[in-house]
Amino acid sequence: MYDLLKGLTVVEAAAFIAGPTCGLYLGQFGAEVIRIDQLGGGPDFRRWPLAPNGESLYWEGLNKAKKSVVIDLASPAGRELAQRLATAPGEDRGLFVTNFPVNGFLSYERLKALRDDVICVRVMGWADGRPALDYTINASVGVPWMTGFADDPRPVNHAFPAWDFITGAYAALSLVSAERARRAGRGGCEVRIPLSDIAATALANFGLLAETLVAGESRPRLGNDVFAAFGRDFVIKGGRRIMVVAITPRQWRAIVGVLGLADAVAALEAELGVSFAAHEAVRFEQRERLYPLFEAAFATKTEAELAPAFETEGVCWSGYRTLAEAAEDATLFGDANPVFGRAAQPSGLDYPVPGPAATLVGPPRGAPTPAPVLGTHTDEVLAELLGMSSGEIGRLHDAGLVAGPK
Amino acid sequence: MYDLLKGLTVVEAAAFIAGPTCGLYLGQFGAEVIRIDQLGGGPDFRRWPLAPNGESLYWEGLNKAKKSVVIDLASPAGRELAQRLATAPGEDRGLFVTNFPVNGFLSYERLKALRDDVICVRVMGWADGRPALDYTINASVGVPWMTGFADDPRPVNHAFPAWDFITGAYAALSLVSAERARRAGRGGCEVRIPLSDIAATALANFGLLAETLVAGESRPRLGNDVFAAFGRDFVIKGGRRIMVVAITPRQWRAIVGVLGLADAVAALEAELGVSFAAHEAVRFEQRERLYPLFEAAFATKTEAELAPAFETEGVCWSGYRTLAEAAEDATLFGDANPVFGRAAQPSGLDYPVPGPAATLVGPPRGAPTPAPVLGTHTDEVLAELLGMSSGEIGRLHDAGLVAGPK
Repeated sequence: MYDLLKGLTVVEAAAFIAGPTCGLYLGQFGAEVIRIDQLGGGPDFRRWPLAPNGESLYWEGLNKAKKSVVIDLASPAGRELAQRLATAPGEDRGLFVTNFPVNGFLSYERLKALRDDVICVRVMGWADGRPALDYTINASVGVPWMTGFADDPRPVNHAFPAWDFITGAYAALSLVSAERARRAGRGGCEVRIPLSDIAATALANFGLLAETLVAGESRPRLGNDVFAAFGRDFVIKGGRRIMVVAITPRQWRAIVGVLGLADAVAALEAELGVSFAAHEAVRFEQRERLYPLFEAAFATKTEAELAPAFETEGVCWSGYRTLAEAAEDATLFGDANPVFGRAAQPSGLDYPVPGPAATLVGPPRGAPTPAPVLGTHTDEVLAELLGMSSGEIGRLHDAGLVAGPK
Repeated sequence: MYDLLKGLTVVEAAAFIAGPTCGLYLGQFGAEVIRIDQLGGGPDFRRWPLAPNGESLYWEGLNKAKKSVVIDLASPAGRELAQRLATAPGEDRGLFVTNFPVNGFLSYERLKALRDDVICVRVMGWADGRPALDYTINASVGVPWMTGFADDPRPVNHAFPAWDFITGAYAALSLVSAERARRAGRGGCEVRIPLSDIAATALANFGLLAETLVAGESRPRLGNDVFAAFGRDFVIKGGRRIMVVAITPRQWRAIVGVLGLADAVAALEAELGVSFAAHEAVRFEQRERLYPLFEAAFATKTEAELAPAFETEGVCWSGYRTLAEAAEDATLFGDANPVFGRAAQPSGLDYPVPGPAATLVGPPRGAPTPAPVLGTHTDEVLAELLGMSSGEIGRLHDAGLVAGPK
């Protein structure tokens, strides 16, 4: 955890991936992030995968570095309490992230009535408020028809919910940016971030939408080929599959050199009247001519031969691994990567837990902060943010409006 | 464009997707983002897809809302100029994003020597400095072996470079967070963001790493099934394929109701001794029993019947579309979505161009800001950031160290 955002207090009422990722990223950068959950936990509290003790590995992964407050959000008094936390007074408070509905009890209008300069970052499905999840948005924008091989007629969903994670990071950026504007005297605001617009803008931002409009048709399914460069999976001697990409001229020359293909490639260039080094797209256009050369060369080289030469020459490549294989790589997912550490998670399991993905050069990152046990900070937060006395807090418990840890 | 970050000046020296996305997101939130390019353009300047006039739709998509400065980065004097721009004086300057090597002429040490409190956000491949691209990282963390169908032995690369986009958004968050810390008196810093750590932390953050470690094996390939909930693609009457997901009890009851499956589902629950409404994972465990019921029901319903009922009941679904089909949906990619507008892009093409994915409620978003013509702002930036006279700037041009637009 780093202290870049030390001093900020962010209240989160959100479930599943995108909203909680926003709070996670802010908390790991030093903000105090207070997650509000329904009595007994929200709809994501028992989401799989589960630990042997029944705790959700999903929930504890997404809610690290947060405090937990439990409130009866079904009752008017509990809802009012949530509104008051989201709009608590103080220069560095009144920062709220949610995926609750636009027009519900956590609407911007209701919050603004309690604190005029509140900042509300709202993660949504469709921009008009209709429900959507990462996987329905993905189907809707056309990615599954571009994923996988042309010889298979089925669309292929992504296995990793990319839109959720981009939305979470973008929501965190939005909150910190809006807070900067507020401190500059420009007031609060509601920032709405629909998954649909995250997906639509991303596909437009790297030219894919414009390409489609110009061509009048979608980019075809390319299997594992990288568009407009030299890049594909190849099987090397011994049977392992590796991914190799050459976008820059340097990467191209490196791989041609290591494989001893300089003469064969030069002959092909002469035949076709092209330069593969000059522009990566030519390698893509002529890939059906290039692939046989590379397939044959890779089939004669073992990983033990290739890996050191690739490293020396700066070839951009990786072996394909399963996640189980990758999980044993301590330099990536384990104790040899300072990004990972150990933390006392609610599951009681001892496994590598990540802190922030970023590394600050210099400041110690410390151990990752675990997720809270549900309700751990209910009393502390009510006292600190709302100035409640222990008597008042006790009465809320007696009325069943709030709960502590079990 | 919004003015949340108005006043900040960020210098970007980066190519391809992740670094430029960082600058794009900051620029669309109102920061002045100055992109430095090599004479003639960097390695991404002609990257496909291209417009008919030869301009890169990729480059102009990723470099909207920026200014362009062109410098001979191969020469010592040009490199010094880039260093000075990255470390220009002023409270809201000295903010730099790059994917240049850790130890090169744009190293943190060199920049810090020029401005002690410089903030440098560095996008990397592997954390140790080895080269990597989105597609090699993806192979390395195991996602292609989890993507696609179990009946196909091939790994499936993703078609959308998710790690690049998450890295870009996270880099922008890092820069704004670091700037907040600097203003709070905690100095500058270098923030390193390797694609490898973005991927490793993301897979850990939603429990997938822990699941793998507990199980001792990777999650199997699920085809288009959503893990631990009810969700899959189905073919409806007329042949169209739709994606349907039910995670919450409400979503589950909605879809069962619309399809008229309440009795059949109740009979299955009685037979199995389970409640599908109570926990979404039970629907996943028993999916092979549930799917035939849903396949049969979907096959009897047309989209004209389903769509209104789905909307009324709040079913979470979308039809599968190609991107070309989606591109014709003006509410998503076109003029009926306020996120998109028209802009005079270098390609000269008139097509829907996105502004920020976020929507602020209230403030007008205005038209999207286009990408610059390469070198347009060279003179302006040298004058404003470095206080150079027109004579000094002229001498730089004469020496071939900088260039304006062609």
